[in-house]
Amino acid sequence: MLLAIDIGGTKITLSIANSEKIVIKMFQNVQLSGDEMTIPRQIDNLIALACEKIAISEQQITAVGISTCSPFVRMGDDKAIAAPNLCGGLGLQQRNIGNDWKKIPLQTHLRQRFPKVEMENDCVSAVAAERIFGTGKGLNDVIYITWSTGIGCGAYVNGNLIKGKNGNAPHFGPIYMVDRDSTSGNKGFEHLEALASGTAIARNFAQGSTKDAFEQYATNEHARNIIDNAVHHFVKGLISINYVLDTSRIILGGSVLLNNEKLLMPMIRQKFFDESFAAFSEGVEIVVTELGNYLGDLAALSLIMPQEWIAIWQQQKPWQQAPAATVVE
Amino acid sequence: MLLAIDIGGTKITLSIANSEKIVIKMFQNVQLSGDEMTIPRQIDNLIALACEKIAISEQQITAVGISTCSPFVRMGDDKAIAAPNLCGGLGLQQRNIGNDWKKIPLQTHLRQRFPKVEMENDCVSAVAAERIFGTGKGLNDVIYITWSTGIGCGAYVNGNLIKGKNGNAPHFGPIYMVDRDSTSGNKGFEHLEALASGTAIARNFAQGSTKDAFEQYATNEHARNIIDNAVHHFVKGLISINYVLDTSRIILGGSVLLNNEKLLMPMIRQKFFDESFAAFSEGVEIVVTELGNYLGDLAALSLIMPQEWIAIWQQQKPWQQAPAATVVE
Repeated sequence: MLLAIDIGGTKITLSIANSEKIVIKMFQNVQLSGDEMTIPRQIDNLIALACEKIAISEQQITAVGISTCSPFVRMGDDKAIAAPNLCGGLGLQQRNIGNDWKKIPLQTHLRQRFPKVEMENDCVSAVAAERIFGTGKGLNDVIYITWSTGIGCGAYVNGNLIKGKNGNAPHFGPIYMVDRDSTSGNKGFEHLEALASGTAIARNFAQGSTKDAFEQYATNEHARNIIDNAVHHFVKGLISINYVLDTSRIILGGSVLLNNEKLLMPMIRQKFFDESFAAFSEGVEIVVTELGNYLGDLAALSLIMPQEWIAIWQQQKPWQQAPAATVVE
Repeated sequence: MLLAIDIGGTKITLSIANSEKIVIKMFQNVQLSGDEMTIPRQIDNLIALACEKIAISEQQITAVGISTCSPFVRMGDDKAIAAPNLCGGLGLQQRNIGNDWKKIPLQTHLRQRFPKVEMENDCVSAVAAERIFGTGKGLNDVIYITWSTGIGCGAYVNGNLIKGKNGNAPHFGPIYMVDRDSTSGNKGFEHLEALASGTAIARNFAQGSTKDAFEQYATNEHARNIIDNAVHHFVKGLISINYVLDTSRIILGGSVLLNNEKLLMPMIRQKFFDESFAAFSEGVEIVVTELGNYLGDLAALSLIMPQEWIAIWQQQKPWQQAPAATVVE
């Protein structure tokens, strides 16, 4: 059995799969008070609960995949999660998180009792899923980018999953965009995420949510300007990351993109090919994820799935019949 | 014997090496008139001349390494050189190059008679040299960046040389910097190279060469502003590429950097660590190439050098006693 853990800023989702399907899926709001072992303990409890429900012992789990918000810091051979939206001790979030954690040593904790524990950023895990099960299948050079409340990226180059020394490659949200004061962690300049993310769109719109801004695109000049400006910066990021990674296909996902695909995709494609050096944009395809909301289930599993399972999953697409998640209070 | 070819915008350098040293080195101005086989023919002649001088037959050459200005375009399994400073048919250079080439099929040409022909961008080849013989030795995550008349980059991530689908990764000069009209190939924005390269410094200074501008840094406010501005953009590029590649060491080279190392390195280091998210800059070292001017000799060789030679070369550093290059008229 494989255990997949997905850690976001608000909830933790845990799934267990066998060679043919996802057998149980549950989620719980992430617990942010207490010491830095709070989340590892929360996950221990979820694992125990899930194993009990499907009547297996923990020893039947051969590998654990973790897809999580990041960045990471090194802890020996392991990585620890140092995500500003979970770790209050980093002091990088404007809201009060309610803890003083600088890191979460989850991988080290789980390695004490599971033989294999792989952990990657959620977009790095997502591009693994895209390359195994999605529209990135068979490609050696492929990028997945999420345009959501934040902006993230995962990439294969020449068939290798790009991780970098601490597993923080390819971070795409913080790249340089404009000279101006910023409260986001960079000093003296504003990065892509602060200019183009769903959060940025809502903040700049100020007359409602990101959804409201998109709904008023045709009728409200202010909404249109905000969104055009976000697209402008998002595409500049795509052009730059394609220069750096020389990719074949850019797969786009995330709520901002998926909820407004018909408006955004023609704008993105036109600007990308119009503004980039032809030598680098020629032959690049920009597509929408076909895995969509299944990415959450598949990302962590893709980090650890054995070759012999993959053929079965590719053929039977069991993620389309995954059980509904049980809510754990 | 190994054959190394280095192709720049103005000259071609050719070296032949045995397991212990570089035995001959010659260079000739690059020939830009005639058809797209002009440079392949020029190289054929240089190979014949070099082989004759050291009394070997071409059949004794077991591998060819080519380090060249780029970008590349695909030609089946090979790459062809589509560099705007060599190929007039691309229409991307403001000066008249005097030919209508869209590409130079050098790799395909040489593969007809040599068993192994590896070709990479000059900075990609340089980072290979840095990782084998230079200050990148033993590092899995290392970047080489040249700051010269142009700006270029080569990188290993997790021990893999980053090439991308057409061998154009990691292009660093064309990344997005500022919204404004550009004549450089991007549309509607100015890229890093146009703001920070040696060429850009001289153009913006307008009162003399890049060298003049640096000499007047302490006394001429205009020169100082130009250089500070170039450093500003160069460091923004370093910060962004470190976000994308999560590296351990950034090795800097190129004439602008090497000729002004004492002025530039403290400025670069201070701004990089001051302005970047600490989570990503922590643990990054920014150093100057120790191979310096030897990179030209070693880059192409590093693409093809067999393991058993490497140990000898690492120990004996024969590049320090390479013969002076013979000029071919």
